Amino acid sequence: MTTPHPHPEPAERRWPDEPLAKDLARLRETNSLTHCVTNLVVTGFTANVLLAAGASPAMVIAAEEVADFAAVASGVLINVGTVTEPDARAMLIAARAARDAETPWVLDPVAVGALRFRTDLVAELVELSPAVIRGNASEILALAGRPGGGKGADSTARSAEAIDAARSVASQTGAVVAISGEVDYVVAGDEVIGVGGGDPLLTKVTGSGCALGALMAAFLGVAGSPADAAVAASAVFGAAGQRAAAEVSGPGSLAVALLDQLYLLDPAEWTS
Amino acid sequence: MTTPHPHPEPAERRWPDEPLAKDLARLRETNSLTHCVTNLVVTGFTANVLLAAGASPAMVIAAEEVADFAAVASGVLINVGTVTEPDARAMLIAARAARDAETPWVLDPVAVGALRFRTDLVAELVELSPAVIRGNASEILALAGRPGGGKGADSTARSAEAIDAARSVASQTGAVVAISGEVDYVVAGDEVIGVGGGDPLLTKVTGSGCALGALMAAFLGVAGSPADAAVAASAVFGAAGQRAAAEVSGPGSLAVALLDQLYLLDPAEWTS
Amino acid sequence: MTTPHPHPEPAERRWPDEPLAKDLARLRETNSLTHCVTNLVVTGFTANVLLAAGASPAMVIAAEEVADFAAVASGVLINVGTVTEPDARAMLIAARAARDAETPWVLDPVAVGALRFRTDLVAELVELSPAVIRGNASEILALAGRPGGGKGADSTARSAEAIDAARSVASQTGAVVAISGEVDYVVAGDEVIGVGGGDPLLTKVTGSGCALGALMAAFLGVAGSPADAAVAASAVFGAAGQRAAAEVSGPGSLAVALLDQLYLLDPAEWTS
Repeated sequence: MTTPHPHPEPAERRWPDEPLAKDLARLRETNSLTHCVTNLVVTGFTANVLLAAGASPAMVIAAEEVADFAAVASGVLINVGTVTEPDARAMLIAARAARDAETPWVLDPVAVGALRFRTDLVAELVELSPAVIRGNASEILALAGRPGGGKGADSTARSAEAIDAARSVASQTGAVVAISGEVDYVVAGDEVIGVGGGDPLLTKVTGSGCALGALMAAFLGVAGSPADAAVAASAVFGAAGQRAAAEVSGPGSLAVALLDQLYLLDPAEWTS
Repeated sequence: MTTPHPHPEPAERRWPDEPLAKDLARLRETNSLTHCVTNLVVTGFTANVLLAAGASPAMVIAAEEVADFAAVASGVLINVGTVTEPDARAMLIAARAARDAETPWVLDPVAVGALRFRTDLVAELVELSPAVIRGNASEILALAGRPGGGKGADSTARSAEAIDAARSVASQTGAVVAISGEVDYVVAGDEVIGVGGGDPLLTKVTGSGCALGALMAAFLGVAGSPADAAVAASAVFGAAGQRAAAEVSGPGSLAVALLDQLYLLDPAEWTS
Repeated sequence: MTTPHPHPEPAERRWPDEPLAKDLARLRETNSLTHCVTNLVVTGFTANVLLAAGASPAMVIAAEEVADFAAVASGVLINVGTVTEPDARAMLIAARAARDAETPWVLDPVAVGALRFRTDLVAELVELSPAVIRGNASEILALAGRPGGGKGADSTARSAEAIDAARSVASQTGAVVAISGEVDYVVAGDEVIGVGGGDPLLTKVTGSGCALGALMAAFLGVAGSPADAAVAASAVFGAAGQRAAAEVSGPGSLAVALLDQLYLLDPAEWTS
């Protein structure tokens, strides 16, 4: 006997289906200009993920430049992974400019909860109307005020354990909340969508979650809604990750194959 | 019938020929100490490109250190891709020190024209006598005061469309101007040299243009002139890129194979 | 006839042996939380090396955050490769916090001796009780006050030439001193241990030495002593590097294969 679940089973999406194929085709056609203010561990990999998928990355970080860029970009990512004080100022400027220009943006609150400085910064950023908040289970639990551990930037909780916390964050902020993990979940209002794909070996590639957040920002420029963008990015990244993992024996090769598979992913897979 | 061209057809160079083989052999023998003050998206890849080609990279960026280093290096690269205010100060110090010590240096004016802060900085840097200015067509058009678009760090114009602008920049600055694109052009005074090689897939590898600028700085330490250095770097990078592209199916593998092919490129190919 | 040596021949260690297998197994079980304040050329590669080996990397660099993180980490790495003034302040805070919390830490004094700013910083850091100091021969010679050249971040001396300098540094500081080179040496008090493995092609991969320093910080959390940690990291990295080099033709592939081999290295190799 199972305990009755207060919510219906999450819907599941997986590459390919028609809306996903259309969103990827539009990303390739328009080369969404994606402005990333991200951490310095993953800048190169993030830019390569965006290029491989078909977007046009811009990694401008100066306080003097981020407002102008955020205003013209299709989507913006703000990721606090290695934030310093000048970065924090630039992130707040970028987020305000994005909000004011109605450029949709993604917040990636890396390791929020564990450290006071970034936790305070994230609290300010959340007020600036991100379209999507993406994190691992520990980060989403922390955002909801529920201690969920976390080890450095790594989660110690499973993604499904953070669904209720994600609902709470979504309700408080109006953002779509994406939880990355064994299964990726996208929580939009009352709706919960599970996205298949991926591979456990991806946790051994630094920045795979961060790059997924950037890809969500890229899809914000072409998808019908923030929820659609988060689902499309998760499904595309998950499919590429799964195909890449099937052909490699370790994490070095996986990072390389992931870029190849993102590039090779073909919207025509749906119609064919 | 074709419209008469006001300039002769550009000469074309391509790996291997005797002067290119000699320059690469000297780079390998001397391990040109190449000082890069570059953007944080591409630091690792740039250092790996320099090492694979045979140079010795140094990525020192502190205002307290760049002058001493620029003075002893064989060549210096200054790339404004992710410049912040402290970086800008360090770049100006490095450029002045390079000029005063007669260390030849390369300016890579990433996304100039699109953003005020870096456009002003580039205007100051141009006054400090770079030996080579390397950019994509949109950047060279912007330097010449001709709006040429550009999307983030990506060009929206073809390299051949920027040849006249490059002549103008070369004439105003005294620098050799290198335009990267489908064909790379090196403009030195009245001379225009096209360099063959490369592959369109390289546009999906972040930092391939930036790394080419660094390689020009490395060749400045061994080639007979700035024009020779720009041509040698373009030909070597183009040959390695073309060979790498022939053996891969996506951009992840291409970045890896490019490093391998740079390392494997053999000056003896000319004499054999 | 050979000149009588004032010291006994160094002991040699090489993967696999029983203590090394036990240390690697413990690293995998505990996922040592390894806090790196390192240079921006190698952040991504360093994090990937730690993940592949089984540790949990954290690359927090803000002055506001490093003390809290250093206090809870299993081990800390401080690497001055691209240090700026704000970085220097954060490094001193992190080192003091590590010392006060008794978190063992590794100092990587990249290019010490060549540049005043970092040489002064390293002198301050050395006073804060690093458990391990890791460098190439030129860096260890410089630390001992013996001019040993160096070209940028590269050594111009052989590792064996720095053994006496390492003894001197070890005696003055109380730290274990690790010299990276053709053979890696670990000098602990009167004991000198040579560690086999590695490959000359690793010198063409940027950050391989820096990543080895980070791996020493990871092993500090599980090995019986700083000397054991330095030896374990060197042996594990050397074995993975040697296996990787055997299957590749250039430095791009080597960096990828090194990560795969670190991941595949199996403590059961010893018992089997």
